[in-house]
Amino acid sequence: MLDSLRRTFELHGFSPLETRAVEKLETLAKKGETSKEVYALSRIHDVKSDSSDAQLGLHFDLTVPFARFVVENSGHLVFPFKRYQIQKVWRGERPQEGRFREFVQADIDVVGQDTLPFHYEVDLPLVMAEALDSLDIGQTIIQVNNRKVCEGFYEGLQIADVAGTLRAVDKLDKIGEEGVARILVDDGGLSAQQAEAALDLARISGEDAKDVLEQVRALGVSTELLEVGLSELGDLLTEAQATRPGAIRAVLKIARGLDYYTGSVYETLLVGHEDLGSIGGGGRYDSLATVGKRSFPGVGISIGVTRLLSRLLASAEVGRPVATVVLVAVASESERHASNEIAAQLRARGIAADVAPTAAKFGKQIRHADRLGIPFVWFPGDNQVKDIRSGEQVEADPRTWQAPDKDLYPVARWRQGDMPS
Amino acid sequence: MLDSLRRTFELHGFSPLETRAVEKLETLAKKGETSKEVYALSRIHDVKSDSSDAQLGLHFDLTVPFARFVVENSGHLVFPFKRYQIQKVWRGERPQEGRFREFVQADIDVVGQDTLPFHYEVDLPLVMAEALDSLDIGQTIIQVNNRKVCEGFYEGLQIADVAGTLRAVDKLDKIGEEGVARILVDDGGLSAQQAEAALDLARISGEDAKDVLEQVRALGVSTELLEVGLSELGDLLTEAQATRPGAIRAVLKIARGLDYYTGSVYETLLVGHEDLGSIGGGGRYDSLATVGKRSFPGVGISIGVTRLLSRLLASAEVGRPVATVVLVAVASESERHASNEIAAQLRARGIAADVAPTAAKFGKQIRHADRLGIPFVWFPGDNQVKDIRSGEQVEADPRTWQAPDKDLYPVARWRQGDMPS
Repeated sequence: MLDSLRRTFELHGFSPLETRAVEKLETLAKKGETSKEVYALSRIHDVKSDSSDAQLGLHFDLTVPFARFVVENSGHLVFPFKRYQIQKVWRGERPQEGRFREFVQADIDVVGQDTLPFHYEVDLPLVMAEALDSLDIGQTIIQVNNRKVCEGFYEGLQIADVAGTLRAVDKLDKIGEEGVARILVDDGGLSAQQAEAALDLARISGEDAKDVLEQVRALGVSTELLEVGLSELGDLLTEAQATRPGAIRAVLKIARGLDYYTGSVYETLLVGHEDLGSIGGGGRYDSLATVGKRSFPGVGISIGVTRLLSRLLASAEVGRPVATVVLVAVASESERHASNEIAAQLRARGIAADVAPTAAKFGKQIRHADRLGIPFVWFPGDNQVKDIRSGEQVEADPRTWQAPDKDLYPVARWRQGDMPS
Repeated sequence: MLDSLRRTFELHGFSPLETRAVEKLETLAKKGETSKEVYALSRIHDVKSDSSDAQLGLHFDLTVPFARFVVENSGHLVFPFKRYQIQKVWRGERPQEGRFREFVQADIDVVGQDTLPFHYEVDLPLVMAEALDSLDIGQTIIQVNNRKVCEGFYEGLQIADVAGTLRAVDKLDKIGEEGVARILVDDGGLSAQQAEAALDLARISGEDAKDVLEQVRALGVSTELLEVGLSELGDLLTEAQATRPGAIRAVLKIARGLDYYTGSVYETLLVGHEDLGSIGGGGRYDSLATVGKRSFPGVGISIGVTRLLSRLLASAEVGRPVATVVLVAVASESERHASNEIAAQLRARGIAADVAPTAAKFGKQIRHADRLGIPFVWFPGDNQVKDIRSGEQVEADPRTWQAPDKDLYPVARWRQGDMPS
């Protein structure tokens, strides 16, 4: 899975980046909201003293370390800088289904210096859709929205607290329309009509640019910012339909809680597993970091690899636990070298081969292969190879014998029926 | 580099294993010596209170987590269990050349239940030698010794403190023969003759089994344990010479500080970079862990990937920072979709392609490719592809054009001359 992601990201021109797992606590604390989840580090032998060493913690996402990296290396990078980063992150949360304290994230970001063309907001979800497609895990949908659409629309409704309205709308799936309306009116000070209009916008969804834009315009609100947002959202849907139909869908209730998004926002679902929640998201931000007068606007999207995998594994037929295709039997310990040589000949042609642990009776050696799911056993004396599943045994030359393609690598199969195709 | 290691280990029947980075402190503390280097974890929001949560820390090697894994899963594993594990580990040491606080190790181990055949002590260094060979980093040598040889020899000399003698001999490279002799006599209570005989043994080295065994026997000591050790060491050298001449060398001063080795021990050097110290090591141990009456003897060998890489990178010509082979130019923003399609056609055939960030003048787009080391720029209008290194430009079809093999992936080349071949 990670190899497939890597491959797609590299095919699209993203540089691999790996940052250290440990950052200064002051770096990690810049995003206030999650800081309580940070694991701080201390050395056992000076656990009492708050020594002069910098206070350290484990990163809880890949965005904060990436921002630190960009600031430290801005003089050496070629902008727009496209990087992917697949690493573990740690959060001190209560573990539950789909939530882990240690998990792997895969992030792609494009960061510009001072400016970043809009088209990257179109490119990134399409790259991620292609990456998800390569995993052969069933259908995923990247739901998109644009902050400018919401903010422009709220402006047009004379709603003062745009951020608060977004945050309330973000709760739609959790507390329903009535709950959101109540927050908007009671806490946000919106009129009933303003709240209803905000919900009208949030109800709109669709894959077709023209259709979505018409639905929004039918609500009768118009501002400059809304028009910019609709134009961007339209461009994204148009390119998506031309390139990868069905992969991307406008869902105007998608708000993404974080304040720093300023344009497109993304949230990814695994179809048939919507209860798992978002398997990834992201969006456009106007400033990842600043260095003096320079700012670094960007757009990023990530996948929660562990969350996705945890669900897939629950319904998977996992292949054998070793890559081994052939177990070479050993007739007697004094003849082990001959078995080693056969294994080496197979490996030289890319066929993973192991040699039996002991020169036990052949029946026991076959049983060892069977317990590991190794499909073939090779008998060195008369160069016979046996498919232990069918029992078929043929004479073969270790310098030329080919394993069937389907047996060359262990493959996990996500079970039919559980996983929509 | 990691892909090559993985590939070799899987070709030899090792299962991939990844354990969490975090272990209970009590698990990590079982090996007393390194516990002071452990990074303990705490949650920021309860930093004051030693709450009832288990005390946690980051693993400092891959052996301790592996032992924990084997104990937890012994009922489900097929023994002998062969696993490889390539992960980061953390140690709170003072950083210096070749020593890091966060670094990657690659370990292979074979663990049996109650018993483990000797031949794995021969197999493992040969697998690691093959893996190192696959990295194309110049010559490495795995130096081997056998604890039974040393212990049997010391027994024959009536040396009581075998472990203390081993620890002193282990300091040979640091403090020289005189220093070791002084420790042996002053602290260990050896006679001058005993100390000299121990040093005689430590001076022996060679690749040829017969030659090494003759050198040891010429010292006139004979015990049962020594004979067992010599037989094992001889078998290892004989198989190594038959399989991979030059990769393995007996060096009888190799002691490895750790007490738990009981048979073969290994220490790997990068030829021409002996000053870097050992780039990896390992050996045979009689008990990785115990579960009730069961014990799990094993043999393992590891490489310090980061240490190795830090030295290699110091003299490397590193390839371009992206996999991108082709930058597709953009004539105007309204024609970006056409450039996207060309890039998609190239990617579909495994050629990494990026699309120019903006529809700037072609000269500027070429400069962008050049700054990233991307070798080719594609002009969409008349489908021309230009090798920007030679300036050569030809007409080409994105559905059939092939990039030269040498340009398909960025490759790091360890500089000739610095790296012996």
